[in-house]
Amino acid sequence: MMSDRVVNFAAGPATLPVSVLEQARRDLISLPGIGVSPLEISHRSPWFRDVIDEATTNIRDLLGIPSTHQIIFCQGGATLQFSMMAMNLLRGTERAAEHVVTGSWGARAVVEAAKEGDARTIWTGAGHGFSRVPHESEWRASADAAFLHVTSNETIEGVQWPELPRAPEGVPLVADVSSDFLSRPIDAGICGLLYAGAQKNAGPAGVTIVIVRGDLLDRAPEGLPTMLDYRTYVAHGSLYNTPPVFAIYIVMLVTRWLRDEVGGLAEQERRNRAKAAVLYDAIDESDGFYSAHADAGSRSVMNVTFRLPSEELDVRFVAEAASRGLAELKGHRSIGGIRASLYNAMTIEGVEALAMFMRGYSAAN
Amino acid sequence: MMSDRVVNFAAGPATLPVSVLEQARRDLISLPGIGVSPLEISHRSPWFRDVIDEATTNIRDLLGIPSTHQIIFCQGGATLQFSMMAMNLLRGTERAAEHVVTGSWGARAVVEAAKEGDARTIWTGAGHGFSRVPHESEWRASADAAFLHVTSNETIEGVQWPELPRAPEGVPLVADVSSDFLSRPIDAGICGLLYAGAQKNAGPAGVTIVIVRGDLLDRAPEGLPTMLDYRTYVAHGSLYNTPPVFAIYIVMLVTRWLRDEVGGLAEQERRNRAKAAVLYDAIDESDGFYSAHADAGSRSVMNVTFRLPSEELDVRFVAEAASRGLAELKGHRSIGGIRASLYNAMTIEGVEALAMFMRGYSAAN
Repeated sequence: MMSDRVVNFAAGPATLPVSVLEQARRDLISLPGIGVSPLEISHRSPWFRDVIDEATTNIRDLLGIPSTHQIIFCQGGATLQFSMMAMNLLRGTERAAEHVVTGSWGARAVVEAAKEGDARTIWTGAGHGFSRVPHESEWRASADAAFLHVTSNETIEGVQWPELPRAPEGVPLVADVSSDFLSRPIDAGICGLLYAGAQKNAGPAGVTIVIVRGDLLDRAPEGLPTMLDYRTYVAHGSLYNTPPVFAIYIVMLVTRWLRDEVGGLAEQERRNRAKAAVLYDAIDESDGFYSAHADAGSRSVMNVTFRLPSEELDVRFVAEAASRGLAELKGHRSIGGIRASLYNAMTIEGVEALAMFMRGYSAAN
Repeated sequence: MMSDRVVNFAAGPATLPVSVLEQARRDLISLPGIGVSPLEISHRSPWFRDVIDEATTNIRDLLGIPSTHQIIFCQGGATLQFSMMAMNLLRGTERAAEHVVTGSWGARAVVEAAKEGDARTIWTGAGHGFSRVPHESEWRASADAAFLHVTSNETIEGVQWPELPRAPEGVPLVADVSSDFLSRPIDAGICGLLYAGAQKNAGPAGVTIVIVRGDLLDRAPEGLPTMLDYRTYVAHGSLYNTPPVFAIYIVMLVTRWLRDEVGGLAEQERRNRAKAAVLYDAIDESDGFYSAHADAGSRSVMNVTFRLPSEELDVRFVAEAASRGLAELKGHRSIGGIRASLYNAMTIEGVEALAMFMRGYSAAN
């Protein structure tokens, strides 16, 4: 049954733990003792209360989220969060939002925030094709900004902050952590707002996890649409209206897997670094046949982006890899080349198979 | 395997066709010939293109949606649509939105629309606890309204328009059809905008289907958040960012079931009317032991709401029914009593079992 699965390097939606899929399959027609499918069950049922409570607790425990912060489940992906965070934290204020832009997603966040207020790009890597995060000396956030926004990992370019930067005292750090959420420990206490589309490390597409420091909730202006006001989700435990029940159930299973099977985020980070090292080594040892997109200090552990000597070799690489069960290696259309996404559920065996293929391909070409 | 399933009368998320659940289970670990789960697959994959195309085509064919109208997939449920439709059609205009309010959901729609512009309630059933839709003589929409808003079926009160009313020439009819979408044929050509959370007749929670007449797209003001502008979804085929892939896949399977196994909406409506008649007959023949919430001409075919002579009898009714595998019969907390939801996937056998239980319960009490 498992042997027909490919190694799925997709950037998101992305590969999930097989044990999670197997549990979901066991439950799919009828939850034991309840008699309905998780696709059918009421969001007001005791079963789902337990599911959303466990998902929340798992996330809180895995990341060490302090009790000052609330964990809520939204919809619409990070792209809706670009607007929602600015509606809640920027609209109606006299202050400016400050953005450090290290890739395509960060740039989109500025566009949406600018519709809600004064949104400024205080550093951007656009000039060099988003190949790195800034050095400390290259940027400085204002002490009176509405918030400082960063993207912890840029999925398209494969550029990741080695660790989240600190905002000035009193300025909330807002981080789009969509593509490295739950991939490593973070210092959640320094963050005002974290948001993550689930479809990388945390679950399937269709649910967005938001972690917000409680005191920031009062910054929202009056009159926000109910579904775009974080207070609605906090006040109603994410159950003001019908949430994406099945997606949250999968997030619960994935976080339970992280807790029980992996053993926590320190171990998960160790595995992720080991996987990324296998690929970056294959790139670095290729005598320039493969060239990484990102600079050494900014290379993503999640999305390994590189290119071959010609576009024709890129195309054949993707096709030949796919024929060997190494799927979804085509780079994002905006930068081309190759992208191998190595989220939590990607196995070291899958990555080693890709590295071996890379060595064979470069030798043959 | 099937015998452990209960008869699920939940108001949404709600029962789904067993053949749909079985197909989803077969695919859950690995789609044949592709080797990844529908929970993992890229929204840019050829497989998902086919899925969203078929879901769209099925909805178009089942409802006879004219080519003037676009079908898109959003998130956030009907509650986000309360805001989104008003942002797109009301914000920035000089005109007023006019709402006919026949239940709790319609009342909420007014609250959200009023945040975007001038939203007026031109008729409400609040004075009599939302027991009916208005007579034709009781309301009149203005010829210069931004739109006329109705809720085709009120899930909480069990009040349904026998058919959608007509808006004055030139005024778009906007209908929240969440809880009777795909339950009967409608004259889609008279509608400007239809929206429906999927979790009643069309699929699981987590996706919202919106049908919008193309010429209305130009009414949206500049500067809307990208994810709250219908044009984004139309221009990108609902793939501007990652959509709820798995939920749309289930919508595709459900609409395929409606097309191939049921044979279309005329037949589905016939079945739904037959199911509702079984319950309303049990109510009407109970010599007043059961009393229906809604007036005769406004009774919902989807949500049958009624009460017993005392609250204590209500409570015991729900518990005894549940012990016989007749689940989720408790009325919404805001109106109490009993609610039996009879969406498309509810079988006549399930409804007959409930009617038989009702006769036994009234005889015994």
